[in-house]
Amino acid sequence: MIESSTRVYAVIGDPIEHSLSPALQNWLIRRFDLDAVYVAFRVIPDRLKACVDGIRALGLAGINVTVPHKQAVIAHVDRVSPEVERLGAANTLVPGAEGIEAHVTDPVGFLESLSGERERFRGAAVVLLGAGGAAQSVSYVLGRLGVAQLTLTDLESGRAERLADLAQRSFGLPRVTAMEAGSDSLSERLARADVIINATPVGMSPHTERSPIGESGLLHSKQLVYDLIYNPATTRLLADAAARGAAVKNGLDMLIEQGVASLRLWTGKPLRLGARERGQLRSYLQERL
Amino acid sequence: MIESSTRVYAVIGDPIEHSLSPALQNWLIRRFDLDAVYVAFRVIPDRLKACVDGIRALGLAGINVTVPHKQAVIAHVDRVSPEVERLGAANTLVPGAEGIEAHVTDPVGFLESLSGERERFRGAAVVLLGAGGAAQSVSYVLGRLGVAQLTLTDLESGRAERLADLAQRSFGLPRVTAMEAGSDSLSERLARADVIINATPVGMSPHTERSPIGESGLLHSKQLVYDLIYNPATTRLLADAAARGAAVKNGLDMLIEQGVASLRLWTGKPLRLGARERGQLRSYLQERL
Repeated sequence: MIESSTRVYAVIGDPIEHSLSPALQNWLIRRFDLDAVYVAFRVIPDRLKACVDGIRALGLAGINVTVPHKQAVIAHVDRVSPEVERLGAANTLVPGAEGIEAHVTDPVGFLESLSGERERFRGAAVVLLGAGGAAQSVSYVLGRLGVAQLTLTDLESGRAERLADLAQRSFGLPRVTAMEAGSDSLSERLARADVIINATPVGMSPHTERSPIGESGLLHSKQLVYDLIYNPATTRLLADAAARGAAVKNGLDMLIEQGVASLRLWTGKPLRLGARERGQLRSYLQERL
Repeated sequence: MIESSTRVYAVIGDPIEHSLSPALQNWLIRRFDLDAVYVAFRVIPDRLKACVDGIRALGLAGINVTVPHKQAVIAHVDRVSPEVERLGAANTLVPGAEGIEAHVTDPVGFLESLSGERERFRGAAVVLLGAGGAAQSVSYVLGRLGVAQLTLTDLESGRAERLADLAQRSFGLPRVTAMEAGSDSLSERLARADVIINATPVGMSPHTERSPIGESGLLHSKQLVYDLIYNPATTRLLADAAARGAAVKNGLDMLIEQGVASLRLWTGKPLRLGARERGQLRSYLQERL
């Protein structure tokens, strides 16, 4: 029941019409019994400043920020969290008495999504496909998980090298190497990897026939293959990995845990989902893809 | 179900926490099966311009405006309706391709609230208590209803005279007289009135023991007594009138019809409530007072 007292949360981005965030957050709002509602606003880049000023004027209680505003929004807020400072991107605005503080929930979302799988990462060899914003947050968490060796690759020239440098310098990762996509040395790393993570958009709907790695023969049953994509729920990469007996995971749990993290920031309450509830929410979202 | 496609309507004002508008509009949204949600934002006067700019930037689909912004908001919109031009106040903003247009739904809300009672006004003697913004909209409609004689009164010196002048000059009312509150001549007019309308806040919660007319002995069974107040649903004035056998009406139907009028403006659809539905909505709102 929406009343005058109901707090309003929103996601801003462009495009926004396919965002799962309203479905996700309103499910969580019901689950946690909050007097709140979550809506989506399409905001074009030219109007980002007016939008942030409007958020203050209207007294919105919390904002998620998505493409293309994750970097640009930082210029318009009053404070940033240490992780935003480090990663250079924000996806959650927390309005408060001292103005708007920008946070980023990618790291906590990735970390919390791992649940019982965290032990796999200690001392592991990891191949991370992609070196953009999502890959940067993943690398940051990999450092905290005690990964032994990280191999990075990206189709955009120079990006993997830059992230490799940052990861080694700032994220506490001991051995980080950038490799060329499709190279023999990368194939070797893939075959030997304990964990393969896809942080590229390759395989995302509507181009669902594509995989970010050429040969599925490199995948095997001792690996965890984690695709940050959640639409489709089973990408070509995950289907190939499952066929080869690997453990697989898609991006829905990370999306869910980022949503819970936003609500913790906005409410100040220690909100958590149990495993069974997370499964229910996952099914609910999967039906809406 | 709130999705990325869900349009967002809102009311802005200060204070806003006791507004019935979200309950009203979300009931109508369900009834008319619209993909929309209606929320409330407290906006302080200093931030009204940033708020209107933010409404544009966020792409809100429709806004109701309440105290204290009904006059001030006009300076920040792109266009105004002829009725806003004439009445000098707006309560509904309609965003469109050519910017934001300001409308006022008080006249149509009052008119539509009368339903079967319109005939009572043709050739009638009407006493209107109060000469503020609401009284101005009511006077404007009384001109269109063919009222024969209008008597105005207001506790604030000069206000009744100014409205009398405007009503005679611009609203097509033939005989308009301003009279002093508590005067013998006003008592005479009250006793002879066919319709008495209260457009003052006197009797509103929490000061429910008060009536805008001193002597209930002036009321009688051939009158319609219409109190624009809806909280409480039965004011002291309406209780006195009912005890004397008069027909009575509170402000809920006007509130409801203003809500429907806003949705017509925002959707462009010819939305109407039937009498039975209006009764259901009236009960629903009354429970929330």
